[in-house]
Amino acid sequence: MIDTRLRRRRAILLGATGSVGQRFARLLEHHPWFELTTLCASERSTCRAYREVARWVQDAPIPERFAERRVESCAPDDHAWPAGDPPLVFSALDADVAGPLESAWAQRGALVVSNASSHRMTRGVPLVVPEVNPEHLELAPARGGRVLCNPNCTTIGLSLVLAPLVREFGVEAVQLTSLQAVSGAGLDGPSAFEMLGEVVPLITGEEEKLERETRVIFGECAGGVLRPRDAFVRATCTRVPVVDGHTLSISVRLTRPTDEPELCAALEGFRGLPQQLGLPSAPERPLRFLDDSDPPRPRRDAARFGGMTTILGRLRRRSAREWDLVALTHNTLRGAAGGALLLAELAVAREAGLDSASDARSPRAEPVQRLP
Amino acid sequence: MIDTRLRRRRAILLGATGSVGQRFARLLEHHPWFELTTLCASERSTCRAYREVARWVQDAPIPERFAERRVESCAPDDHAWPAGDPPLVFSALDADVAGPLESAWAQRGALVVSNASSHRMTRGVPLVVPEVNPEHLELAPARGGRVLCNPNCTTIGLSLVLAPLVREFGVEAVQLTSLQAVSGAGLDGPSAFEMLGEVVPLITGEEEKLERETRVIFGECAGGVLRPRDAFVRATCTRVPVVDGHTLSISVRLTRPTDEPELCAALEGFRGLPQQLGLPSAPERPLRFLDDSDPPRPRRDAARFGGMTTILGRLRRRSAREWDLVALTHNTLRGAAGGALLLAELAVAREAGLDSASDARSPRAEPVQRLP
Amino acid sequence: MIDTRLRRRRAILLGATGSVGQRFARLLEHHPWFELTTLCASERSTCRAYREVARWVQDAPIPERFAERRVESCAPDDHAWPAGDPPLVFSALDADVAGPLESAWAQRGALVVSNASSHRMTRGVPLVVPEVNPEHLELAPARGGRVLCNPNCTTIGLSLVLAPLVREFGVEAVQLTSLQAVSGAGLDGPSAFEMLGEVVPLITGEEEKLERETRVIFGECAGGVLRPRDAFVRATCTRVPVVDGHTLSISVRLTRPTDEPELCAALEGFRGLPQQLGLPSAPERPLRFLDDSDPPRPRRDAARFGGMTTILGRLRRRSAREWDLVALTHNTLRGAAGGALLLAELAVAREAGLDSASDARSPRAEPVQRLP
Amino acid sequence: MIDTRLRRRRAILLGATGSVGQRFARLLEHHPWFELTTLCASERSTCRAYREVARWVQDAPIPERFAERRVESCAPDDHAWPAGDPPLVFSALDADVAGPLESAWAQRGALVVSNASSHRMTRGVPLVVPEVNPEHLELAPARGGRVLCNPNCTTIGLSLVLAPLVREFGVEAVQLTSLQAVSGAGLDGPSAFEMLGEVVPLITGEEEKLERETRVIFGECAGGVLRPRDAFVRATCTRVPVVDGHTLSISVRLTRPTDEPELCAALEGFRGLPQQLGLPSAPERPLRFLDDSDPPRPRRDAARFGGMTTILGRLRRRSAREWDLVALTHNTLRGAAGGALLLAELAVAREAGLDSASDARSPRAEPVQRLP
Repeated sequence: MIDTRLRRRRAILLGATGSVGQRFARLLEHHPWFELTTLCASERSTCRAYREVARWVQDAPIPERFAERRVESCAPDDHAWPAGDPPLVFSALDADVAGPLESAWAQRGALVVSNASSHRMTRGVPLVVPEVNPEHLELAPARGGRVLCNPNCTTIGLSLVLAPLVREFGVEAVQLTSLQAVSGAGLDGPSAFEMLGEVVPLITGEEEKLERETRVIFGECAGGVLRPRDAFVRATCTRVPVVDGHTLSISVRLTRPTDEPELCAALEGFRGLPQQLGLPSAPERPLRFLDDSDPPRPRRDAARFGGMTTILGRLRRRSAREWDLVALTHNTLRGAAGGALLLAELAVAREAGLDSASDARSPRAEPVQRLP
Repeated sequence: MIDTRLRRRRAILLGATGSVGQRFARLLEHHPWFELTTLCASERSTCRAYREVARWVQDAPIPERFAERRVESCAPDDHAWPAGDPPLVFSALDADVAGPLESAWAQRGALVVSNASSHRMTRGVPLVVPEVNPEHLELAPARGGRVLCNPNCTTIGLSLVLAPLVREFGVEAVQLTSLQAVSGAGLDGPSAFEMLGEVVPLITGEEEKLERETRVIFGECAGGVLRPRDAFVRATCTRVPVVDGHTLSISVRLTRPTDEPELCAALEGFRGLPQQLGLPSAPERPLRFLDDSDPPRPRRDAARFGGMTTILGRLRRRSAREWDLVALTHNTLRGAAGGALLLAELAVAREAGLDSASDARSPRAEPVQRLP
Repeated sequence: MIDTRLRRRRAILLGATGSVGQRFARLLEHHPWFELTTLCASERSTCRAYREVARWVQDAPIPERFAERRVESCAPDDHAWPAGDPPLVFSALDADVAGPLESAWAQRGALVVSNASSHRMTRGVPLVVPEVNPEHLELAPARGGRVLCNPNCTTIGLSLVLAPLVREFGVEAVQLTSLQAVSGAGLDGPSAFEMLGEVVPLITGEEEKLERETRVIFGECAGGVLRPRDAFVRATCTRVPVVDGHTLSISVRLTRPTDEPELCAALEGFRGLPQQLGLPSAPERPLRFLDDSDPPRPRRDAARFGGMTTILGRLRRRSAREWDLVALTHNTLRGAAGGALLLAELAVAREAGLDSASDARSPRAEPVQRLP
Repeated sequence: MIDTRLRRRRAILLGATGSVGQRFARLLEHHPWFELTTLCASERSTCRAYREVARWVQDAPIPERFAERRVESCAPDDHAWPAGDPPLVFSALDADVAGPLESAWAQRGALVVSNASSHRMTRGVPLVVPEVNPEHLELAPARGGRVLCNPNCTTIGLSLVLAPLVREFGVEAVQLTSLQAVSGAGLDGPSAFEMLGEVVPLITGEEEKLERETRVIFGECAGGVLRPRDAFVRATCTRVPVVDGHTLSISVRLTRPTDEPELCAALEGFRGLPQQLGLPSAPERPLRFLDDSDPPRPRRDAARFGGMTTILGRLRRRSAREWDLVALTHNTLRGAAGGALLLAELAVAREAGLDSASDARSPRAEPVQRLP
């Protein structure tokens, strides 16, 4: 038995007061593997109660166990930590401050799992969607100080859809228009004055991130070196007045022709390492269709299945190699805090050697979440 | 001088109480060529004041001259009309009742300009965007009873964008995702309960209309017979919580390579017959770019330029033959009442022989709107 | 022990496809006392699967156990029912058809609990908020065919707030402005076109209902006769673009002066018979304050505490007898399906004699929900 | 003739890039009396084109004449101005920086008309709604450097409603709930994430402003000294997801009983000095009713009548002295830029002695706007 390989690991959260930070706090409230011991935020929040400084906007109440916790500094030097027991650090920091702080924590030996974009293109920092490219984790050491990056929220949803297509049929080109929710931009995101009843067909830098990050995620990793794929995604990103849930209108051109039953089977049958390992935050199925006559809608559906499943709909054949569909991903769960948490679980399972254990690959035979 | 060729023509409006009907009433309040004398609606509204039965939702007040007008029946037999002077009939009826009523009016000699979809695929009924395919008017007689159809609101915006591209470069394929406003569906459209903060990525029948109608509009018309183009438009239509203005995210593949200056020149330089004739409702320019850094937004921009110009933005080169851009069209002005009104002006100018007058083609030399 | 006094009772649902009907279906999916066996709707839905005819708009999926159920007729004569075992009937019908159908079911011996307004002013039909005026149930027979009415959604939230004030201090006058969500009006309610970014400061009939129903609910019931209170509520009702949750801005004038601690204690300490009986749908506390600096917000807070607690905030003293506060009530849970369900539980407990059992009044000593 | 008493006066605008600043720019684009020569903003915007730094959010395009204008510093010392010709200064600055800058401009001799709250309670600074308390202008010198304050947007709408009631019947007490639009808070106001589909029943400081400012506006001004009225307004202010237009649900208790015709006559017949003087920005009527069955709605109606008329509806009698009604005021036109502009016009007319000319009081006999 492997019960002893995992134990409850202490975690700290950087950027705890923002919108994504609040999501992390909720997800970590009762996590079986991680214990959130420290909430950190910018200077103007430190030494005050989390309840006071988090402008709480979640539809569930602020977790009671964190509400009165004093918020601490984000700088690793302000924290005493046992040398042999570096923490797991979740970063929900803004990109403009995340980079140096995350590096500093990694240098102090922490495993940093970041939702910020700062290090996504840094050499030695894996950019990973756990179901899609878990093997990229080998770009960083298996233990000790390192940074792992969660991709952009839109990239994550798209990558989940593309993964089984790339594997089964090959994907030559992807074209998409996104309809993105406002929560991604957080409390300092677009003002109500700008977004009420409005579409803004520009999200600065988003299309570039999407095109660049998919090149990396679907790139090849050999001998500790990553070779990105050629660009194959062409995107137009828009902001719509929706609270949570990015809707993607996707057109793909496959390498190999297929038909609808085979395509559906590939999409709905898709499972990844998190499902095999039974990681605590892994959804049963990463991709699901609703009835075609009832396509996914963000307000109604984004939070289904724990917000960790990308919901599909409106599959339409244009030719045997050209297909259109719609995909909905919860942008602050799967696309941010939930995705990062799953990535941390994967990294910790790997540290513990679970990912190479032969029995781990049998589907949910011995659900890991019962182990700790 | 041709001052006498036109005289103020009496018009009646079918479906006056609905959302598009209200738009017609506003546009016809001070029209230089047409005098709206009769407002018609369904039985439950007849014999009551327009003010009472129109659940007025426009942001300008109900036109005073129509407010107390008694609403009349939509059936032509309930109207006495001088035999030699059949009216111009605008139809804002719902598709489920429009067909037979429009036919009946045409049989009684009326020029019917319809915004309904009922007759769009009827032989002998031209489906026309005035700047794009005015020559299709020859599918119907130049005088006397006939029906002319305004295309679907999304089709109109797309056709305006494609017209100069087809003409200058050839268009092989078009792929688009629409983000459509709720006003198109009118007062009986989606409920607030469904649409608040929601995206609905399905508008029943819309994609088919778009694909089918563009085949007709860009089809060839020779010898009174229309030969539709092969299908070349592939669309995903979504509804978004915006009041007015359909935003299209468009990708085109051209036949002939081009560069950005040439492409912009073709789009912004586009003028059609309505501009040449100086028709009263013709916008100065059918297509316009805003600054690239400030793409069009429906709430802010849809009503600019009288709501008759399709506003462009975010032009991006993918290859010399592949381009992406965003286009915004006011769906109840250019896409419905305004488009139909412009079509009626074109038809009436054609009756008067204005469209073949050689001087009419010189740009705005003799603005027709001063003539009546 | 009284374990045998209750058994799982079969229930049918009239108006199952509408917005409130969908709420009932969700709440009854796993109810400990009631088993929903039959879903009924209007003729155009009968004989088709519930999944097909319910335009599902809830943020949780359609209950699997009902999804494929055939929808049946609402008329009692179309149903065979064992004579000695009349069903419990929940009515989520529209007011324009509810009256005769509910009467017909009651005549057939059913216990009808209605959310429609049709019978709210009918003699012999108790209008009851379970925590506020359970003693009004005596206006109807304790067993056999009868109709019980759930008040208007806004009335329910207001009555919960007023109940402890009336009891502890006396209430002379109430003035309120409501900001009501669109879900109350349902799928056929205001269109998105009307409500996006809009306030409509008129809800036809709502203010009258509120004023009239509070007179009844706070009226005296003696000898099987109800004597309504004099009118004491003065309301302005508005519709706002919010999905769920009615916000009330309330000003009260008390008979007896008080101070803030005493007032808060009365509000937060309020418990009613449902709490004493431990009815399955009873919230632990009918009224709760959030921090004053963080007043209740409908999108964020309405569904907290199962949507059955009215959330208070912004208590402000104007004088020792005049106070202002804000109250938020989930309009389709506590204000509709949830309220009606709690009322049914109360009526069934009364049938079983639970409400008069002396031990029942001890707080949650013997939670009834364990009995069946 | 008095043609020469007025000449086109040069104006500068502080805080030109914000939401209210943009409104000022639009209103001053073609103003008959004032010529906006200088647009000022914070340091990060100076020396750049107005088009670049104003994140333009108005539904009309940026005025062409200002688009390329370089934005300048807000500090008076950075501006050269002829000693004898101090400018008219409009301040749309945020309250946290407005105070000292406005004082500095006044010390340099400018007539400062401010929309900020900084000086509203400063001795010697009149707080004026032009139709309501123009006589308060005497609290400041008639010429030379001084600051005049436009009240809070909600105060303005309420004061217009109360003015004729105070004058004709006396007002003992006012109770109101506001439903306020997001544009008041501007581009840095509440985020879309917070406000989409949400009501926030707290606007920090707003209720206090409303209660305090109405005491001043309806206070007595004698011998250059202001004696505020006793507090008589009791408010609950809420934010709703509406772009423009504050809706007030108002209850008043009058000193003298009245009936509906008399009350309506007082409200609709209300005219103030701006109407008598025919000031350019004065609406024909400050208050107007729509049909009772069609109450005012902010999205549809706020901008009617130039956004300068408060629109009334839903008048309901509670007793001969107690009345309820609803009032809608455009918060960034009448409630901010438009109100301040009207105040500037009044002050300039007063400088020119127009306000004491006996003929000026005759209604619109000699419209002043033709004079310059």
